[in-house]
Amino acid sequence: MEVIHLQTRKRVEFLDITDRVQEVVSRSGVRSGIVVVYSPHTTAGLTVNEHADPAVREDIADTLGDLVPRNRTYRHLEGNADSHVKTSLMGPSLTLIVEDGKIQLGTWQGIFFCEFDGPRSRKVWVRVVGE
Amino acid sequence: MEVIHLQTRKRVEFLDITDRVQEVVSRSGVRSGIVVVYSPHTTAGLTVNEHADPAVREDIADTLGDLVPRNRTYRHLEGNADSHVKTSLMGPSLTLIVEDGKIQLGTWQGIFFCEFDGPRSRKVWVRVVGE
Amino acid sequence: MEVIHLQTRKRVEFLDITDRVQEVVSRSGVRSGIVVVYSPHTTAGLTVNEHADPAVREDIADTLGDLVPRNRTYRHLEGNADSHVKTSLMGPSLTLIVEDGKIQLGTWQGIFFCEFDGPRSRKVWVRVVGE
Repeated sequence: MEVIHLQTRKRVEFLDITDRVQEVVSRSGVRSGIVVVYSPHTTAGLTVNEHADPAVREDIADTLGDLVPRNRTYRHLEGNADSHVKTSLMGPSLTLIVEDGKIQLGTWQGIFFCEFDGPRSRKVWVRVVGE
Repeated sequence: MEVIHLQTRKRVEFLDITDRVQEVVSRSGVRSGIVVVYSPHTTAGLTVNEHADPAVREDIADTLGDLVPRNRTYRHLEGNADSHVKTSLMGPSLTLIVEDGKIQLGTWQGIFFCEFDGPRSRKVWVRVVGE
Repeated sequence: MEVIHLQTRKRVEFLDITDRVQEVVSRSGVRSGIVVVYSPHTTAGLTVNEHADPAVREDIADTLGDLVPRNRTYRHLEGNADSHVKTSLMGPSLTLIVEDGKIQLGTWQGIFFCEFDGPRSRKVWVRVVGE
C-alpha cells in the first residue's frame, strides 16, 4: 500500500489526483489488474468525474452543499456534520481497472479527492492488485 | 478487460446489464474471485437495485431528478451539469463477488447502467479478477 | 465467500460491522490484499464513516430521510421506495485494503450496514482477495 499526501486549501474543494494515482500504479510494475484508491477520512471522499472543465467539480460541490446544508440542525456538534454526510454520498473508495500499466479512464474522466472539511493535511491510500 | 456496448434511448434511463456482465464473467473462465464493472463516462454511472419491478429504477431516476434539477443554475454551461452530479452520486464502478463462475447477487438485485445524458452510444468496461 | 448474519431492530438503522468483517479477514489467513464487503439487499446498503460519535450515523440517516422522504409519491407501491433510493445513494459494496492481516481504516472510520427497511434479518457477504 502506498500513501499519497495532500494539502487542501478550502473547506470544500475537489483535488485532481489522477497523476498521483497513476505514479503509484507505474511504480508498482503491475501491467494488468485493478487499483483500489481509498480515503481514510470521515469528512473527505473520492469520486470520478470530468477533469476538463473545472466548473463541473464546483457544480458537484455546490449541489451537495444545497442538498446537505451546513446550517441544518444536526446531532453531531462539531460543526462538520454536513461533511460526514457528503462523504458517505461520494463514498470512501474507488476501484479502477489497470491495463498496460495504465489506469483505464474515459476521455473526460479524472480521479478527485473530495475535501468537505478543510483546509487540512490529508492522505489517500492506494493498493494495486496485479493479476 | 472486455467492453460491453450499449445504446440508450432516453435522456435518463436505467438499463439492466446483469446478463451482459455475467456473459463476460462466463467467458473469462474465472470460477472464484471478483468482477469490477466500470463506466468510462462522466454523465452515466452504475448501481445495483431491484430488477423485478421496473418502477423502482424509475423512482430512483425521478428522485435524483428532484434532488438535482436540470434547471438549477450551474457553472458548467453544456446543459448537462445535473447529469454529472447524478453520476457522482451513483458512482462510476461496482465491485461484485464471483463464486462458481456466477456473479453473486441477492434475489432481487440486478446491475444497472444509469444513463443521465442520453440518448447516446455508451460503453461499460468489465475486468474479472480470479483468485 | 463468507456470510455475516445481522438482525436489525428499526426501520432505519446503521450497524457497525467493523469487527465482524475483521473476523472474516483474520480467518481467511490473508495478510495483504483487499476485501470486498457486499450487501445482497435492495433496501440496505453499506458505508464507511465515523464510529466514535453515534450522532454522525444518525445525522446521515436523518439527512437521507429529508432528501428522500418516505411519503413522496413513488411508482413502486410497497411503501419502501425511499429505502431503494437510499440504498443506491450509499451503494451496495465497499472495497477495502488489507495489510498485515488487518483492514486498513482511518482512525475514526468504521464499516456500517445501512438498514433502510427494517427490522429484518439481513446478510452481508465478504470476499477476501490475497495478493
